[in-house]
Amino acid sequence: MRNIKMIIEYEGTNYHGFQRQHNGLAVQEVLEDKLSFLAGEKVTLNSSGRTDAGVHARGQVVNFFTSSKISAWKLSLALNNLLPDDIVVTSIEDVPKSFHARYSAKSKRYCYYIWNSSFPSVFWRKYALFFPRKLDLPIMQEATQYLQGEHNFTAFCNGKSAVKSFVRHVTALEIRKDEHLLTVDIEANGFLYNMVRIIVGTLVEIGVGKKEPGDLKKIIASQDRKKAGFTAPPEGLFLQEVKY
Amino acid sequence: MRNIKMIIEYEGTNYHGFQRQHNGLAVQEVLEDKLSFLAGEKVTLNSSGRTDAGVHARGQVVNFFTSSKISAWKLSLALNNLLPDDIVVTSIEDVPKSFHARYSAKSKRYCYYIWNSSFPSVFWRKYALFFPRKLDLPIMQEATQYLQGEHNFTAFCNGKSAVKSFVRHVTALEIRKDEHLLTVDIEANGFLYNMVRIIVGTLVEIGVGKKEPGDLKKIIASQDRKKAGFTAPPEGLFLQEVKY
Repeated sequence: MRNIKMIIEYEGTNYHGFQRQHNGLAVQEVLEDKLSFLAGEKVTLNSSGRTDAGVHARGQVVNFFTSSKISAWKLSLALNNLLPDDIVVTSIEDVPKSFHARYSAKSKRYCYYIWNSSFPSVFWRKYALFFPRKLDLPIMQEATQYLQGEHNFTAFCNGKSAVKSFVRHVTALEIRKDEHLLTVDIEANGFLYNMVRIIVGTLVEIGVGKKEPGDLKKIIASQDRKKAGFTAPPEGLFLQEVKY
Repeated sequence: MRNIKMIIEYEGTNYHGFQRQHNGLAVQEVLEDKLSFLAGEKVTLNSSGRTDAGVHARGQVVNFFTSSKISAWKLSLALNNLLPDDIVVTSIEDVPKSFHARYSAKSKRYCYYIWNSSFPSVFWRKYALFFPRKLDLPIMQEATQYLQGEHNFTAFCNGKSAVKSFVRHVTALEIRKDEHLLTVDIEANGFLYNMVRIIVGTLVEIGVGKKEPGDLKKIIASQDRKKAGFTAPPEGLFLQEVKY
C-alpha cells in the first residue's frame, strides 16, 4: 500500500464544506468519488480538518492509502481532468506510511478578507466580507497583540466542542491593507470551531469602536462566547496552508 | 439637464460585452434599463469604449444626461441595489456638460493576467489565461521596449476597423510576476480592436521561444496581422482605468 499526500485548492461557494455528509455535497465526496474511479478501489481521504460550508481553501491537505500503481503525477493530471472547475489538485507526492494529514500537522494558516469600501466589489463578493463602515486599521492592529500567544480560546468557539482542551497557541496574527482590501492573516497550532471567524468579527467590532483592544484580555479571561464579537461569514475565509 | 459621470466595475463572464447589441445581453443594456427606471426617463449612456464579450472592467467610465433631481450619491446607492451582483457603480459625480466618456479620454490602462503554473487556479480560472508551459519572464520584459512609444499597430488589430489611423502611443507597458500570476499592465492613448489581447499573445509566443524580442520590430513594420501572435482569450483582460 502507498500513502499519497495531496494539496487541494477549492472554492467553497457551491459545497457544504469539506467533510462528507448527508445533507449536501461536500468537497471530500467529490474527491473520493473521482479518486476511487481512477484507482479502481474505494479510496477514503484523511484531511487536515473540516472547513465549513462556503469556506475556501488554497492549501487543504489530504492523504490516502492505495494499492494503485499509477504514478502520483499522472494521478494528479487525471484527477484534475475529472474534477469540477472549483476543485483543483495543486501538489501530489508519495509520503511515508506514518504521515497523516490531520495528526501530523504542526500548524495551520488562515486568511480572512474584508472588502472595506462604500461600494461592494464585483470581484471579491464571493471571497470577502463586504463591510462599508470605516474600520480603524491601527486600532485593529494594536488589538492583535492580545490574541497572540497561548490562550484559552473558549470565548472564541461556537457550539459545544468535544475537544479536550480549548487552549491554542496563536503564533502569528497580522492585519494588512491594500487599497480597499483588508487581510487578516492568522497562524496557530490548531483552531477551535469558528475560531478565526469569531476573532475576525471581534476585530471588526474593535475597528468600529464598539469594543476596545484592551477588552480582549477580559473576553479571553471570561471564557464566555457571548462576550466576543459576531461570527464573520464563511465566504471571507481561506484555509491558506497546513504546515508539517 | 445634468451630466453625470460614473465609474463601473463588472465581471464580463455572463455578458456579451459592454455595448448594447441584438444577439445577447450587454452590460450597457442592464445599466440603461435600471437608470431609466430610477430617473423616470429614457437614459442613454456614453462609454469610454466597448469591451468584448467576457472581458472584465475595474474602471469603465460612462456619462449620461438626465433631468432627474436625485442626488448623484443617492442614485448610485439605488442603482447598486437594483443591479445584479456582477455589475457595481463605484463612483458617481456631476460633471460639466462638455464631458464625454469617450471623447474626453486621454488614455486607457488595461491589465491582462496569465496563470503560469502546471495546475490551473480555482480562483483565477475566470480572470486569467491558464498557461502551463514555462514562460521566460526576462525575455518577455525585454520585448516590451519594442512596443512602447508611438507605432502603427496594424499588425496588432483584428478585422477591418473603420478607424482613421492605426497609430497609437503606448505610454507604459510592464510585466510583473507574483508567484504563479503574471500581470501585463499596458497604457496607451487608445487601443485598436483586440490590440491588448494580440500583444499579450505575441508576448507569450516570445516567452516560450517561438518568437524573439527583436522580431517585434519586423512585425510592427510588416503591418500584417498574420505576423503577430495569437489573440489571447478575453477572460484575462481587465479595463483598469480611463484617464481624463
